[in-house]
Amino acid sequence: MKKYLIGVDVGGTSIKFGRFSLEGDLIEKWNIRTNHKDQGEYIITDIVKSLKSQVEISEIFGIGIGVPGPVKDDLIIHCVNLNWGTKNIKEEMKSLLQREDIIIKIGNDANVAAAGEMYKGSAKGYKNVVMYTLGTGIGGGIIIDGKPLEGVNGAGAELGHIVVDFKHNYRCACGKTGCLETVSSATGIVRLAKEYLIHFKARSPLRHFENFSAKKVFDYAKEGDYISRKIIEESMKYLALAIANVSLTIDPEIIIIGGGVSNAGGYLIDMINKFYPSFSSPFIKKANIQLATLGNDAGIYGCAYLVKWWNLKFLIKM
Amino acid sequence: MKKYLIGVDVGGTSIKFGRFSLEGDLIEKWNIRTNHKDQGEYIITDIVKSLKSQVEISEIFGIGIGVPGPVKDDLIIHCVNLNWGTKNIKEEMKSLLQREDIIIKIGNDANVAAAGEMYKGSAKGYKNVVMYTLGTGIGGGIIIDGKPLEGVNGAGAELGHIVVDFKHNYRCACGKTGCLETVSSATGIVRLAKEYLIHFKARSPLRHFENFSAKKVFDYAKEGDYISRKIIEESMKYLALAIANVSLTIDPEIIIIGGGVSNAGGYLIDMINKFYPSFSSPFIKKANIQLATLGNDAGIYGCAYLVKWWNLKFLIKM
Repeated sequence: MKKYLIGVDVGGTSIKFGRFSLEGDLIEKWNIRTNHKDQGEYIITDIVKSLKSQVEISEIFGIGIGVPGPVKDDLIIHCVNLNWGTKNIKEEMKSLLQREDIIIKIGNDANVAAAGEMYKGSAKGYKNVVMYTLGTGIGGGIIIDGKPLEGVNGAGAELGHIVVDFKHNYRCACGKTGCLETVSSATGIVRLAKEYLIHFKARSPLRHFENFSAKKVFDYAKEGDYISRKIIEESMKYLALAIANVSLTIDPEIIIIGGGVSNAGGYLIDMINKFYPSFSSPFIKKANIQLATLGNDAGIYGCAYLVKWWNLKFLIKM
Repeated sequence: MKKYLIGVDVGGTSIKFGRFSLEGDLIEKWNIRTNHKDQGEYIITDIVKSLKSQVEISEIFGIGIGVPGPVKDDLIIHCVNLNWGTKNIKEEMKSLLQREDIIIKIGNDANVAAAGEMYKGSAKGYKNVVMYTLGTGIGGGIIIDGKPLEGVNGAGAELGHIVVDFKHNYRCACGKTGCLETVSSATGIVRLAKEYLIHFKARSPLRHFENFSAKKVFDYAKEGDYISRKIIEESMKYLALAIANVSLTIDPEIIIIGGGVSNAGGYLIDMINKFYPSFSSPFIKKANIQLATLGNDAGIYGCAYLVKWWNLKFLIKM
């Protein structure tokens, strides 16, 4: 009988599904809306229902599930976005699927995205990977020797909350000031831009808009607008500092930049590389810094990898 | 026949030896001077000679060796202090000892010290440990799931070179400015103190000395001297930032502070704890911060652990 790996990436807005061959090739993908009703208590039944309608349950080898919150040894510590407290969804899934033998692995969404890029994306062939997902916030994922780093409390790789800015004192959603997320996320770039437009008098096409996106700031910077370039430089200087710090700590092979902001492409990587040497150490070889390539599919690939990795670890024959 | 674990901690000034039972109990320790002649080429023969004079070679189960430089898979990348370039001392030792079957494991000295504290010191019972050794410089060691983190280039845990200070611009031995080592090592504390004594006019017993140690600054701070306290506060604020950053990255169970500066004791830990919350995240549980307890023996204990860990990993019967 054909067997498949299933990846389920649970987000605040939608739940993405992927069906993969045992070699990790994506066969089909689909998604459903995340149902927030009653403390998110229908999410698991929705997942099972969707799986049953799309896949022959007996053909599932294993399911990897990524969730937006800390996870330790397959136990979800909490997911603020889903209104979940501590939750063991493994047994619930097995019982709903009526298959006790199925392998179910749970991971944090940012770690799972890093695993996805390592499995089939721009970090393919590497085993020591750090990934920054630059979106509205900043997520961080770390893989060491092929294994996602969960940390003791399931909170490893909270890379968006490393303090890097001692100048602006922007307040982060986490309560602190100076977090990387406050200056290098999409929101952070716009925040910096609004301050620059007040403090500097130079002309800038940004002044034509009341509201604009981080993409706009990148676009004008690329076109040579002085203020936009200064904004991006400052924002990427903080990111370079954060990347250098994480490199000095765990000395990875490759650093992947993903999320919406990474659509700025090679220009963004060049900016990081410009500032990186002043924060890194001549003692250590510079990690390769690359753009993510899997986009929104990184999560489902990484979920499939979780099952794969678990099997390799225990040498279970697939 | 009785079998022993041997720990050899190679430093720039002396080489420390320890003979341990297979359970990791220290039976005896001794040391010899480090011979720097001819690019340090006599160091290995000196180690073997000293071992032969002190131990029955046939009774050695395995030898762990700590060296002051990056190490990857038992290969020494370089040791600036010993004038060593890339070096494979494993085979050299086996041949000099005329025992091919002996287990020889090599580790970086700071990682090995962290392993020692985990094996028999203040991190006993933990498996995820970060150690800062505050001396003339700052060394860093990281253990994840019981395994010393070497990093891809053998340069994991270069924790003294994380950039934390954007105010003073002190130049580090590594070439950068702002490294933790420039402000929180013994040398860094004295450097900060000298600047405070110039910029602030308040009285301080420190003014009675032309030269003084970091210990003096700590002592006067504890006695209530205003300037000394301010110096220690600033220095420990940087250390708290560095510790919070590393916690957000790898989420360890315990953080150990060792090295000469750690003799300042509970006062030092209280200072770190005072500043830590402003840099950490409410999302993660605070790691336990403790003083090291093995002092200069941490290295030899950690070397013994390397052999032990290697065996546990491969389930070789000891």
